[in-house]
Amino acid sequence: MRAEIITIGDELLYGQIQDLNSSFISERLTAEGIDVVFKTSVGDDINRIAEAFNIARLRVDVIVASGGLGPTSDDLTKKAVVKAFKRNLVFHQEILKQIEDSFHKRGSPMPKINQNQALIPQGAKALSNLWGVAPGIFLQDSKTLFFALPGVPVEMKWMVENEVLPILRAKKPEHFILHRKLKTTGISESALYEKIEKLIDPKEEIKIAFLPGYLGVNIRLTMESRDKNQAQVKIDEFEQKIREVLGTYIYGTDDQTLEEVVGGLLLKRKKTIAVAESCTGGLIGARFTNISGSSKYFERGVITYSNPAKTELLSVPKEIIEKYGAVSEQVAILMAEGVRNLAKTDYGLSVTGIAGPTGGTPQKPVGLVFVGFAHENDSFAQRFMFGEDRNSNRERASQAALNLVRLFLIK
Amino acid sequence: MRAEIITIGDELLYGQIQDLNSSFISERLTAEGIDVVFKTSVGDDINRIAEAFNIARLRVDVIVASGGLGPTSDDLTKKAVVKAFKRNLVFHQEILKQIEDSFHKRGSPMPKINQNQALIPQGAKALSNLWGVAPGIFLQDSKTLFFALPGVPVEMKWMVENEVLPILRAKKPEHFILHRKLKTTGISESALYEKIEKLIDPKEEIKIAFLPGYLGVNIRLTMESRDKNQAQVKIDEFEQKIREVLGTYIYGTDDQTLEEVVGGLLLKRKKTIAVAESCTGGLIGARFTNISGSSKYFERGVITYSNPAKTELLSVPKEIIEKYGAVSEQVAILMAEGVRNLAKTDYGLSVTGIAGPTGGTPQKPVGLVFVGFAHENDSFAQRFMFGEDRNSNRERASQAALNLVRLFLIK
Repeated sequence: MRAEIITIGDELLYGQIQDLNSSFISERLTAEGIDVVFKTSVGDDINRIAEAFNIARLRVDVIVASGGLGPTSDDLTKKAVVKAFKRNLVFHQEILKQIEDSFHKRGSPMPKINQNQALIPQGAKALSNLWGVAPGIFLQDSKTLFFALPGVPVEMKWMVENEVLPILRAKKPEHFILHRKLKTTGISESALYEKIEKLIDPKEEIKIAFLPGYLGVNIRLTMESRDKNQAQVKIDEFEQKIREVLGTYIYGTDDQTLEEVVGGLLLKRKKTIAVAESCTGGLIGARFTNISGSSKYFERGVITYSNPAKTELLSVPKEIIEKYGAVSEQVAILMAEGVRNLAKTDYGLSVTGIAGPTGGTPQKPVGLVFVGFAHENDSFAQRFMFGEDRNSNRERASQAALNLVRLFLIK
Repeated sequence: MRAEIITIGDELLYGQIQDLNSSFISERLTAEGIDVVFKTSVGDDINRIAEAFNIARLRVDVIVASGGLGPTSDDLTKKAVVKAFKRNLVFHQEILKQIEDSFHKRGSPMPKINQNQALIPQGAKALSNLWGVAPGIFLQDSKTLFFALPGVPVEMKWMVENEVLPILRAKKPEHFILHRKLKTTGISESALYEKIEKLIDPKEEIKIAFLPGYLGVNIRLTMESRDKNQAQVKIDEFEQKIREVLGTYIYGTDDQTLEEVVGGLLLKRKKTIAVAESCTGGLIGARFTNISGSSKYFERGVITYSNPAKTELLSVPKEIIEKYGAVSEQVAILMAEGVRNLAKTDYGLSVTGIAGPTGGTPQKPVGLVFVGFAHENDSFAQRFMFGEDRNSNRERASQAALNLVRLFLIK
């Protein structure tokens, strides 16, 4: 089964907002083994929307459109359905009743304009909308399965899960596409490739892709099969082979985040941590505390952006900062020890660096970062040299710091 | 001039990564007054790529494709150009020379496979690539202007700015689309709409759109005109009318962030600030320090996640926490005063709340947040009630805290 996703709205063509709806629909369809082969975005224009529908009918089996179902005059999807599929709109009393009830529940009368939403193309089915009033549309036209969903993400998502996927599951032949993502950090794409090159066999059923980002490289394994269990076994086996070669470079799989993995390790080992941040300015704290339940291991953080803050809160001697500079191995170690003593935690983690764009010198250029770590018996620091962009330097420093904790904990 | 953007790559159809390239190209073309009317994404398949090119040729004047220009067998764009435009590939000695030089500069010999990149469709122009080796392609075919760019963002972006836009500027008739974004926070979309409803005239040349997000609602004004200066004046006048009605709900325009605005105000008034965060866990510090030069006003932060941290670092009496709870107006005020005293700054800002999903009670449900603020003469706290999602509660709390500082500074 091949699908096309069509997202509707002028705002998608101005480039100022991301088309998150089409990503969501892609991901859910792909997970069901449906092959998404085209994505199209089109503005609020009846003729162009109808054209997009007509082109899609010729080349795919499933069309999922999102956007343009509201009651105002901007919302043209239904008129485009009439044009492309040559079906009249039919008024449905029971849909009007649902819409009225939905307003009633919110304690407000239904505006007249919403009556339009009870019009549905002839032969189509209205899809229920838990989070809004506009019903979706499902239309079967010769061999094309056509869905029109609202553009509001929460409404669209619910409708995909509860209306679209059940219909598609009932219609599609058994066929699955399995994905597995192996997430690495601290190793470049080319070094990664060299290490696992010999495992890549072009005749192999499992396709492998490298997805580099500045926090690390993800390896995506993809396998298509009619037998879901067999595919699962094969993809597990292949993952195992890659793990044997890459070892601790892999920190997680699929949607796991590094802070989730580190939090899990701390919880399992019943250890607590506190953080002293300079150039990352709170990013590490924000990542730790992004995980529900993190209060069990994350005790506190300090954002010692100024030098007096480092001295007063973390007891880093003024003379050491003057002698070695705030961005130095010595200060990183003392910050980690300082925050560990302050918070009385098992571990202290620190970051100091030059995020840029200003503040660099030939000896200490923009991108230089030290991560410090203090534990029961010792403390140490590691030096990193990142790039020139302030934002990515801060993100990469927070990633390196979390990864250092992970590597310490699994050692 | 009407344009279609075509992005190429299997990964765009799996829904796991965002198509940031098409957003960038859209935004740059729109800013030049070119009307982007369709966006298409297609996988790594010669026939489907050629089909997308052929459909685009029939409906737009400008096609900008991105992706699939590398030397490996995955990269099929050039073969699809041959198929769609019916032109042979021609070998260019001077392009080979450039590619060899580019490898030479990096100190490595050119792999044989990169020779392919010196093949260019007959009659096409190679576009130079500052950041990589694959040249882009520009082809004029009857009235279609066709560009093929690499998919690597840094290479694509440079090529758009330095190769594509200069060609388009020379070819296009004078016509501009101007956008202005007014960014608001602390007011709902419907309340906003009610306030400015009377300003909206459907016959008005300026189109108005509401873009709601959980950090606030942006209002986008759009005007098309042949006269850029006149459009500028009209859009300025309309902005002024909206500002008269909305006042301080508007915190910035276009790409301005709230942290940038607040930082600018602190800098102008020569004031310093320190932050004490509980449920936001470092997000406010991270936002303040995301701005280069923030060390002039952001002195330090503390992430007092545990109650002992609140008592030890901020001198919030244990008894007060026990009596009123860590999430209370009293504790928020004492945290703000505590961090102001600790850091000896002009202002102290604090946040304490229940981010969720756990920790809520009937009296203090998930989503309850207090923002505290301490200044020279006084201190106070404001209560907020957000939603149920942990992540958006944390983001909204940081937005509310920054906005409270802004409103205090402009008062």
